[in-house]
Amino acid sequence: MNTSPINNQFANRIANSDPSGLADLFMASSDPKNISFAGGYPDTSLFPETDLATSFSQAIANQHQAIFQYTDAKGPLKLREQLITRHNFNNNGQFDPANILVTQGGQQAIDLISRLFLNTQTGLALEAPTYMGAIAAFQAYEPTFYEIPMEEDGLNLTIFENELKKSQATSQKIKLLYTIPDFQNPTGITMSTPKRQRLAQLAKEYNFYIIEDSPYRELRYHGEPQPTIQSFDTDDRVLFVSSFSKILSPGLRIGYVVGSSKLITQLAGLKAAVDVQSPTLTLEALSYYLEHFNLDAHINQLKVRYQAKLAAMLTALTIHMPSNLKFTKPSGGFFIWLEHQDAFDMNDFMQQICLPQAHIVFVPSNGQYPVSNVTNGARLNFSNVSILQIQLGIEKLAHLLTTEN
Amino acid sequence: MNTSPINNQFANRIANSDPSGLADLFMASSDPKNISFAGGYPDTSLFPETDLATSFSQAIANQHQAIFQYTDAKGPLKLREQLITRHNFNNNGQFDPANILVTQGGQQAIDLISRLFLNTQTGLALEAPTYMGAIAAFQAYEPTFYEIPMEEDGLNLTIFENELKKSQATSQKIKLLYTIPDFQNPTGITMSTPKRQRLAQLAKEYNFYIIEDSPYRELRYHGEPQPTIQSFDTDDRVLFVSSFSKILSPGLRIGYVVGSSKLITQLAGLKAAVDVQSPTLTLEALSYYLEHFNLDAHINQLKVRYQAKLAAMLTALTIHMPSNLKFTKPSGGFFIWLEHQDAFDMNDFMQQICLPQAHIVFVPSNGQYPVSNVTNGARLNFSNVSILQIQLGIEKLAHLLTTEN
Repeated sequence: MNTSPINNQFANRIANSDPSGLADLFMASSDPKNISFAGGYPDTSLFPETDLATSFSQAIANQHQAIFQYTDAKGPLKLREQLITRHNFNNNGQFDPANILVTQGGQQAIDLISRLFLNTQTGLALEAPTYMGAIAAFQAYEPTFYEIPMEEDGLNLTIFENELKKSQATSQKIKLLYTIPDFQNPTGITMSTPKRQRLAQLAKEYNFYIIEDSPYRELRYHGEPQPTIQSFDTDDRVLFVSSFSKILSPGLRIGYVVGSSKLITQLAGLKAAVDVQSPTLTLEALSYYLEHFNLDAHINQLKVRYQAKLAAMLTALTIHMPSNLKFTKPSGGFFIWLEHQDAFDMNDFMQQICLPQAHIVFVPSNGQYPVSNVTNGARLNFSNVSILQIQLGIEKLAHLLTTEN
Repeated sequence: MNTSPINNQFANRIANSDPSGLADLFMASSDPKNISFAGGYPDTSLFPETDLATSFSQAIANQHQAIFQYTDAKGPLKLREQLITRHNFNNNGQFDPANILVTQGGQQAIDLISRLFLNTQTGLALEAPTYMGAIAAFQAYEPTFYEIPMEEDGLNLTIFENELKKSQATSQKIKLLYTIPDFQNPTGITMSTPKRQRLAQLAKEYNFYIIEDSPYRELRYHGEPQPTIQSFDTDDRVLFVSSFSKILSPGLRIGYVVGSSKLITQLAGLKAAVDVQSPTLTLEALSYYLEHFNLDAHINQLKVRYQAKLAAMLTALTIHMPSNLKFTKPSGGFFIWLEHQDAFDMNDFMQQICLPQAHIVFVPSNGQYPVSNVTNGARLNFSNVSILQIQLGIEKLAHLLTTEN
């Protein structure tokens, strides 16, 4: 807790978070002399520049000046129709445009859902480790965090149900669960179907809501997709969040949330209060893109490239990493999770050895738990590095970790 | 306070606001058979479509695929340089790019500043009436509102200073003032220079911060501009908020906040947690526009058109309005404030008489005070209606108000 005089001017929530560490990390990450396994950036060379350029110019040509005016806070109706049709097709859903709100990336959906449900100290359960950006969004609402450990097939349900039971009679009752069931950020783990089904039941039984955050869902490189948690939901408990950041372009800042029309109406009202709406033109350009180009074919191209990068990283890890380190073997997404023995400090290692000696950056585990101080993990990104950088970088990283042992 | 079972699932802040009334109003406002004096929309026919289309296509052509990638959460450095140079030139400022954060419209700046300063029950002073969207943003943080009445030269400083004094020893101490000093939304009133100077002194004396929200500042149709409150600030107390929504395009969703680098760094961290960043391409397109086209010449064209509309509305009000109604005479901006006698209910009048009989919509005063239930005022917008609609609409409105007397 920061207690310096100037910071007493700020709201309590500000003491919870220190953005400066992350800023340093992303600075190091964007320095071209470093090999960065840190960010969650897609491969820039895969953005469909020509098709997107056409989509922007044609969206303007079709609507003229009106495209620079305000639009519906939920997003244009036609775009919502396109997105919900796509969502229903991919996930056996039965939703209509009243069930979707277009947001400023998936990040804004997480913020708005937090705003809808969380008072100070409200119970919020999440996977540990989890996506740092979600932790930052949640911290602003000062919830009580319940960290649920990860297993090979998703969060530990025994521990979660135990926490649910214990929290029921308290003022920190769990009201919300945040999960990334597909190729989790940062572990790459995918939740099993029985766990998904059970989570939907538990939500009804223990009266909580689920944020099913799934931006990597369509980036599966092996095996068959699991049904969404939402597909098992019979009680309007699940808010499914996704985004075009990983499958098309993060610079567009377009995500969405699918749920009951009652919840979507509330979230739309909250969106109007935080930024009125997303930019009309980017929404209309996406609508044009979805109508005139083949997003699925584009995603298939991405999958070929990312599958090769994932395979290269797994191979390099298998060959070079000392045997006292473990790593996950994801079937999709952007990340592999590397784990040293408990006492090891990945952040110290990166700052003091890895970055100065090998110019390699990754995301150490300490920022990826809202409460615990777990120091022995590292998130490795493979989407925005070349296969050569992967081979070279992982070999160097493994060498330094071997020396440190 | 809504106490139905389902709403108990939501955070306390949700009971504070009901977005459904506003949704109805904007539905009526966009119905082409109505004359709408309701929204705060710029005139669609004045958006520089060709120049903006060029800016988007050239921004893509210049940066290729990189323009679809993530960028700096604060906004691209070059754009921040352009914006701060413009801000300094227009307002005798001495700021640099570390003093500016690019936001998703001015609305997001208001939300982020609230997030930085407001705990539940923190004292927040604002002009009464004020901008509905700001009230909605503030309500999410559950502050204690202090409504400061408006005078012809801006907020009543005697009452404000009295509230400051009274609040000092309490837990609801005023920590933030929200003011729209130029062509205030909804009254059209501009604050006098002595009041601006005094506010900057008071902020230092009573240890509070000021949101100087000024999206209409450059749309002055008569007289000389007043210095900004920020220009009198010697203690880093003022956060100046503005936007391109009224002077270029609201669909772009680009605003900004200028203040001390310490506050801007905090706000940038908060922005990263709510939406990561604004869309890269819209930011780069604005940067291109500012470099290659003449925004000031464009604003001069807007002023000619809006000045004529303001004059037409003031003339129609002067000719037709019964003498027991008062209205303001702004020198700029988008709005005139109409006031009936205290007991009159503008919302009832609009819903039951004006809309069904004359198909005219405006914003009744009841939503424009966070606490008080003031029913006798109406905000009239003149920017997005034709001069013919203004003449016809105001005559009809006046006729119905005369009959209702």
